[in-house]
Amino acid sequence: MCGVIGVSGVPEAARIAYLGLYALQHRGQESAGIVAIGDDGKARATRGMGLVSDVLSPTALAGLGGDTSIGHTRYSTAGSSVLANAQPQLVNYLHGPLAIAHNGNLVNAMAIKERLVAEGSIFTSSSDTEVLVHLIARSKQPTPEAQIREALEAVEGAYTLVISVGREVYAVVDGRGFRPLVLGRLGDGVVAASETCALDLVGATVIRELQPGDFVRLVDGRVEELAPLHRRPVSRCVFELVYFARPDSTVFGESVDRVRRDLGRELAREHPVPGADVVFSVPDSSNAMALGFADVSGVKLEHGLIRNHYVGRTFINPTQALRVAKVKIKFNPVRDVIAGKSVVVVDDSLVRGTTSKGLVQMIRGAGAREVHLRLASPPITGPCHYGIDTPTRGELIGATHSVEEIRAYLGVDTLGYLSLEGMLRAAGPRNAWCHACFSGAYPTPEPDDFARRRHAAPLVETPA
Amino acid sequence: MCGVIGVSGVPEAARIAYLGLYALQHRGQESAGIVAIGDDGKARATRGMGLVSDVLSPTALAGLGGDTSIGHTRYSTAGSSVLANAQPQLVNYLHGPLAIAHNGNLVNAMAIKERLVAEGSIFTSSSDTEVLVHLIARSKQPTPEAQIREALEAVEGAYTLVISVGREVYAVVDGRGFRPLVLGRLGDGVVAASETCALDLVGATVIRELQPGDFVRLVDGRVEELAPLHRRPVSRCVFELVYFARPDSTVFGESVDRVRRDLGRELAREHPVPGADVVFSVPDSSNAMALGFADVSGVKLEHGLIRNHYVGRTFINPTQALRVAKVKIKFNPVRDVIAGKSVVVVDDSLVRGTTSKGLVQMIRGAGAREVHLRLASPPITGPCHYGIDTPTRGELIGATHSVEEIRAYLGVDTLGYLSLEGMLRAAGPRNAWCHACFSGAYPTPEPDDFARRRHAAPLVETPA
Amino acid sequence: MCGVIGVSGVPEAARIAYLGLYALQHRGQESAGIVAIGDDGKARATRGMGLVSDVLSPTALAGLGGDTSIGHTRYSTAGSSVLANAQPQLVNYLHGPLAIAHNGNLVNAMAIKERLVAEGSIFTSSSDTEVLVHLIARSKQPTPEAQIREALEAVEGAYTLVISVGREVYAVVDGRGFRPLVLGRLGDGVVAASETCALDLVGATVIRELQPGDFVRLVDGRVEELAPLHRRPVSRCVFELVYFARPDSTVFGESVDRVRRDLGRELAREHPVPGADVVFSVPDSSNAMALGFADVSGVKLEHGLIRNHYVGRTFINPTQALRVAKVKIKFNPVRDVIAGKSVVVVDDSLVRGTTSKGLVQMIRGAGAREVHLRLASPPITGPCHYGIDTPTRGELIGATHSVEEIRAYLGVDTLGYLSLEGMLRAAGPRNAWCHACFSGAYPTPEPDDFARRRHAAPLVETPA
Amino acid sequence: MCGVIGVSGVPEAARIAYLGLYALQHRGQESAGIVAIGDDGKARATRGMGLVSDVLSPTALAGLGGDTSIGHTRYSTAGSSVLANAQPQLVNYLHGPLAIAHNGNLVNAMAIKERLVAEGSIFTSSSDTEVLVHLIARSKQPTPEAQIREALEAVEGAYTLVISVGREVYAVVDGRGFRPLVLGRLGDGVVAASETCALDLVGATVIRELQPGDFVRLVDGRVEELAPLHRRPVSRCVFELVYFARPDSTVFGESVDRVRRDLGRELAREHPVPGADVVFSVPDSSNAMALGFADVSGVKLEHGLIRNHYVGRTFINPTQALRVAKVKIKFNPVRDVIAGKSVVVVDDSLVRGTTSKGLVQMIRGAGAREVHLRLASPPITGPCHYGIDTPTRGELIGATHSVEEIRAYLGVDTLGYLSLEGMLRAAGPRNAWCHACFSGAYPTPEPDDFARRRHAAPLVETPA
Repeated sequence: MCGVIGVSGVPEAARIAYLGLYALQHRGQESAGIVAIGDDGKARATRGMGLVSDVLSPTALAGLGGDTSIGHTRYSTAGSSVLANAQPQLVNYLHGPLAIAHNGNLVNAMAIKERLVAEGSIFTSSSDTEVLVHLIARSKQPTPEAQIREALEAVEGAYTLVISVGREVYAVVDGRGFRPLVLGRLGDGVVAASETCALDLVGATVIRELQPGDFVRLVDGRVEELAPLHRRPVSRCVFELVYFARPDSTVFGESVDRVRRDLGRELAREHPVPGADVVFSVPDSSNAMALGFADVSGVKLEHGLIRNHYVGRTFINPTQALRVAKVKIKFNPVRDVIAGKSVVVVDDSLVRGTTSKGLVQMIRGAGAREVHLRLASPPITGPCHYGIDTPTRGELIGATHSVEEIRAYLGVDTLGYLSLEGMLRAAGPRNAWCHACFSGAYPTPEPDDFARRRHAAPLVETPA
Repeated sequence: MCGVIGVSGVPEAARIAYLGLYALQHRGQESAGIVAIGDDGKARATRGMGLVSDVLSPTALAGLGGDTSIGHTRYSTAGSSVLANAQPQLVNYLHGPLAIAHNGNLVNAMAIKERLVAEGSIFTSSSDTEVLVHLIARSKQPTPEAQIREALEAVEGAYTLVISVGREVYAVVDGRGFRPLVLGRLGDGVVAASETCALDLVGATVIRELQPGDFVRLVDGRVEELAPLHRRPVSRCVFELVYFARPDSTVFGESVDRVRRDLGRELAREHPVPGADVVFSVPDSSNAMALGFADVSGVKLEHGLIRNHYVGRTFINPTQALRVAKVKIKFNPVRDVIAGKSVVVVDDSLVRGTTSKGLVQMIRGAGAREVHLRLASPPITGPCHYGIDTPTRGELIGATHSVEEIRAYLGVDTLGYLSLEGMLRAAGPRNAWCHACFSGAYPTPEPDDFARRRHAAPLVETPA
Repeated sequence: MCGVIGVSGVPEAARIAYLGLYALQHRGQESAGIVAIGDDGKARATRGMGLVSDVLSPTALAGLGGDTSIGHTRYSTAGSSVLANAQPQLVNYLHGPLAIAHNGNLVNAMAIKERLVAEGSIFTSSSDTEVLVHLIARSKQPTPEAQIREALEAVEGAYTLVISVGREVYAVVDGRGFRPLVLGRLGDGVVAASETCALDLVGATVIRELQPGDFVRLVDGRVEELAPLHRRPVSRCVFELVYFARPDSTVFGESVDRVRRDLGRELAREHPVPGADVVFSVPDSSNAMALGFADVSGVKLEHGLIRNHYVGRTFINPTQALRVAKVKIKFNPVRDVIAGKSVVVVDDSLVRGTTSKGLVQMIRGAGAREVHLRLASPPITGPCHYGIDTPTRGELIGATHSVEEIRAYLGVDTLGYLSLEGMLRAAGPRNAWCHACFSGAYPTPEPDDFARRRHAAPLVETPA
Repeated sequence: MCGVIGVSGVPEAARIAYLGLYALQHRGQESAGIVAIGDDGKARATRGMGLVSDVLSPTALAGLGGDTSIGHTRYSTAGSSVLANAQPQLVNYLHGPLAIAHNGNLVNAMAIKERLVAEGSIFTSSSDTEVLVHLIARSKQPTPEAQIREALEAVEGAYTLVISVGREVYAVVDGRGFRPLVLGRLGDGVVAASETCALDLVGATVIRELQPGDFVRLVDGRVEELAPLHRRPVSRCVFELVYFARPDSTVFGESVDRVRRDLGRELAREHPVPGADVVFSVPDSSNAMALGFADVSGVKLEHGLIRNHYVGRTFINPTQALRVAKVKIKFNPVRDVIAGKSVVVVDDSLVRGTTSKGLVQMIRGAGAREVHLRLASPPITGPCHYGIDTPTRGELIGATHSVEEIRAYLGVDTLGYLSLEGMLRAAGPRNAWCHACFSGAYPTPEPDDFARRRHAAPLVETPA
């Protein structure tokens, strides 16, 4: 997953991009980057591995002048965690500097790349975004807008893009609308960002969310509507609401916090726990769900697990060194809340199951009499092809085990998954949803295995 | 404030100290350090400015061998944030390497220091802990235990200490017991730590908390009881429960989470808000208090503020650069929860009032109809002399303004502070409490102005 | 100026490249980089700003496995000192990973780049080397060899190249032979390097120097001769011998040390200093010249200036801070040698004249009675278009002032420049020479102003 | 060996100290540090491992305000290369901040330290300098001057000290005068430094060298003469002239360059090489000696070895990795000068012999017909107890082997050591000399094995 931002018509635009990325940090911690376009038309970039605040020093930001900027923050994915894949990608081409920040995943990038390579194109990364760069640069259309449009007509999959060509910024969402993008007004300027929380932090007010297929140009702070892309059946990613987006954001027209409380309510209706003493969340992602569960079930809400918020930074692997579960670094139980009780633990979803298993052991160790796990989404049965870094099917416990087997593996007394219908009820009727990872109903063809073929071999840029 | 840890009789003791400090990170983010004593009797130290995981690299830890270790994490205090003040302090003296980790503050260090300096002692820091080092080294008593005891008889104030002399570790709490210390068993070894959450993370089980005046020696994993220090009237710091300790810890015999929920319940009884639509906390420190408030008041609990947990790392001062309130970097409101509602905001305490004022503006900006602020402790009217870095009286809004003036300054509809009696009821009858910062009832003489006199001039060790 | 190296058929080839670059450090201190091609056919790269030993850490080298490697070290040039311009350039294309290390400068790169851009090519640097990358990738020829040949037929100028395509390494020198390249044998492998001193350090023995137009392929340690490029009138850069190359190298068939001694001898014949007491060099570049001067003139050789070899690393600009001449950081006079004497100072060449002016003041300050400056090359009257970073004509004191004016400006009693004929006599009859910067006789058309036109606008990659 | 500097009465004195240390870098590359005393009387310090320019960043220097400063640069010594031993040492004591920079070695520090420890003193380093700190602080004398004097009366050995107490700087040389110190005038201020080259760089003019036993105070730029220390038989270190000092310095009243040329002349007289073709130095330390040798012998001077001046920074151990001699990283022969010739190689001294053996192999590999090694000092037969880091007697090839055995070991045709008398003739009659490492005539009692006893166990401060 990734976060993107674009800024036009704001002095020191890179600082706005920085703050916006800071608010979008939860969408990607692997790498971050900002491109700024100066009044001289030159683009300047800083990219690096790590968090936004690690990569973008005051010195770096000071070198990124101009009123136009785009930014990107990228999630850690196995195997290709290299600087060459950090975004925004920046090149010079016919119409000047071209920079791209991409959230999503193309499913036909491999075939296009093979054609481009045969025609003499060079690649420096293993990302599908570079395919877009070449398609735009090679387009014979007369304007950047027409070049981008031609390139996007050639690709299939999920893409929410912020693209700068010179001082023009293009913002576009694919025809199915997998990933969110919202426009905001900031003084005389305009900001496009993955979530409203980024607009909040920079002090911008929402103009509107981009709908599937929307294509706009931001110039000197103005929003120019361009002819939309070919619209496809809408497929908003429901996992954005279940897990990915920040609860203080409004995404796809829905308050994320509202949806999560409703997920908890639906869960309480579908899987009540008669006789439970307390309910608590696995903080912070399922806080709102536990609230909703308590609301409907009447079970008393408590804080049974405390999260250590310094956790992202430890380097010790305590499993090996000290034979304590890794989960202990992140969570600690509140004995007073748990001891002797029948507890309901609410979590948003279950991927591999290993963390949850550790949590359950920890909760039992704190003296719980009964442990009932409630998950606010259905079993995950397949990978995401549209930008979320789920593991392969074989690692997905929901794809390989029955609910009863999972219950036994986790060591809980009862286990309840929210149904697909329940999840979609909570998500709301405003949108049509992509729920492929839960249902197997993929809205596009299978990807052409971009990552595994020959030319995709990454050029590993070892950091010095 | 500071966190301390001591480990004896555990292989790779420095790794245990590291993990323990990691769990105690909330007690001090300014500097961190570990001393380990090898089988060869030599002490090795790593200290530095910053978080535990920044200071203590794998390389550094690898150099800290041995089954005995002590560690320290220190809170940022104005004016003396320099490496020279980082702990543990480590010197060589008559009985070999001597290291000290100190939580608390001495009130007669200045007078002693002046006497020591007149006698030819040298100082390299501005901390009162160095006074203890000299008192121990200069004691003519025949054993380290007797030297430490003699030194402690000379000082007055708050001290929870972990001291190593060679491979012996001494743990001691002053006769009033301001600061917590707990002993745990880890395999064949023993661990002393500021809070139980550190024992939880390293996998140790609680043996017992040290009572005021308790003095023990840890050798080869054994706990040896030593004759206690002169006992004074017990003065446990109530602010540890209100704010400082982690909610998953048990401190002074009380579950911190339990106390905080009860603080919220007392608050709801003393300052109800008839007609309120929702109650929410300022996360995370007052989460349990909001839960208690909702429980007693029946007002619906929601999450009205979302905290950005990456916040500690930003370098931009957005106030200056972008004229957005600093508080925005840390918190964002959930519009859907707040808009059009009468909201109760629960916070633990109020120091200067500036952050709360920003929060209230943010909540009003999200559309709140009414804002009612409830504080789960009384007005802070004086500084702490026992180790908490409160500002001077002039900066404490509770010392200089009436409650009505504070209400007007913050811009809330109503403001309610929990009473001293209510706070102590929630804290429980098991202990006698120091509540000097709320009540002015200081249990010791005033400090002799350690920090302001001539010889205290710190030797500023500029980091290269 | 730059240094290049290529290694084939040697285990841990990147370590050889590292050592070789270390010996070639004098050819470029701005940036350094190594690409290694593993047995898996994947290329891995490390590039960075700074010295070889700063950029290439043990960790970085450890990640550069394989028996094939190329490396590059780049000189600091004004305005484009950015990471994006560091070499080797590395991309993936039809035949796998393609890496290029380039010493020299193309004079028609701008025109080609404009054509490539019009055809949809993208550029990420402002260097002319990237033009070569595209020409190779876009060539429709069936093999890498044929693609490289086609690309080189299209360009004009100075290029000594080491190119890897997969595990094949191509080494080639343009048809005029401006820059040196030498092949050496190392065990079962082969090494190509800019100078013999690199072969010496890695323990390789010289096979032969590449002649103008020579084109070879190194595979599995074998040298395969390919059909040469179109040969042009030979134009070996005489400045390599005068200044650039290391004295322990053999370049263009000549011992650099031997040539420099002969330059000093010619200088003594052309510009004797009757009555001089001592002669000394400006160390270290003119040491051999002073030796030759003393030899012919009979004037006593001494060491009148001592060079501080830590100088490269200071950050203080003492001129501003302390009003001492910058030259003092680098050189200090030996008073005992100079005081009361008539001294001859031998230097290799004169560019702007500012350093020499400072040196002369320093020598006079040490008590010299007379100062006679002798330069072992003619006045520099024009820029180099073939890879040496001379300033513009306006900054060249030899282009804008008469010898007498220069003498007065420097404040010396007499000034003598070696004649063009004298310089070429010392350089020897074996080669035809490029002496364009001295004589204005440029062997190619003027460059098409690559750096100044629109598409060359560098994408400044600010380091984080 | 170490370099020291003191500055008084110069604005931004730390910048002067920085530049001075930069010029003294050859006297110690292990660690560097500066203490500055501000107008507020506070001392601020920066110390670190590495070169002056690595340790002292612009940021660090900017924090070191005030017109008084002392600095130190320390040589790498086996076993105690730790930050805790970096100087200047800085403490607070009765008269304010006390800082010490020490060049030399005490021989009775161990006995004193044991007494101090028994009396309750604490130590944080394993250096003998800390003993001086305690002696000064514990002195009951009424003034800093009297305290320093009392402390120095208690110690025996070699010490050239720059000490600051508040804004007063004391400079003192022990009664035998082992190590140099020179005073200079800089505007209204005064500078004390180990060598004149430091005065040259900062733009100061020499006032006078301190004689053995001299004791002065520098205040507000004035030099105040204090009663001298007890004078002992003068024992100037002859090795300063042979090897340690920079050739552009004047040390002990002698031009270092002049002495070295005379050492070469004496050597040519004592050990001529009839029939030799060329003579060259091992650069740069023996350059002047080769010049003197050529002058007297009439053998032609050439440059047979080129030194890579980037050498200090490599991290690769090529011996292990690549089986090339380590000496190759540092030196490369000039084949044209050497091949087929009978060569005289002049070096300053021979310690272990390993580097010279490698050099000889390299010279033979370059084709020398005969190799004659000439050393401009006698065989080193014992360690230095006065501050030079010579290895133990067992590692000194001159202590364990005859000249003929050494000749055979090195593989040279002839080997000639300068005689003690010859060396002293060149050093000149102005001084009496310490030549203990050559002659065994130690001017003090043997050291009391400071480094090996119990309390000297260093507190290893592992760098984070």
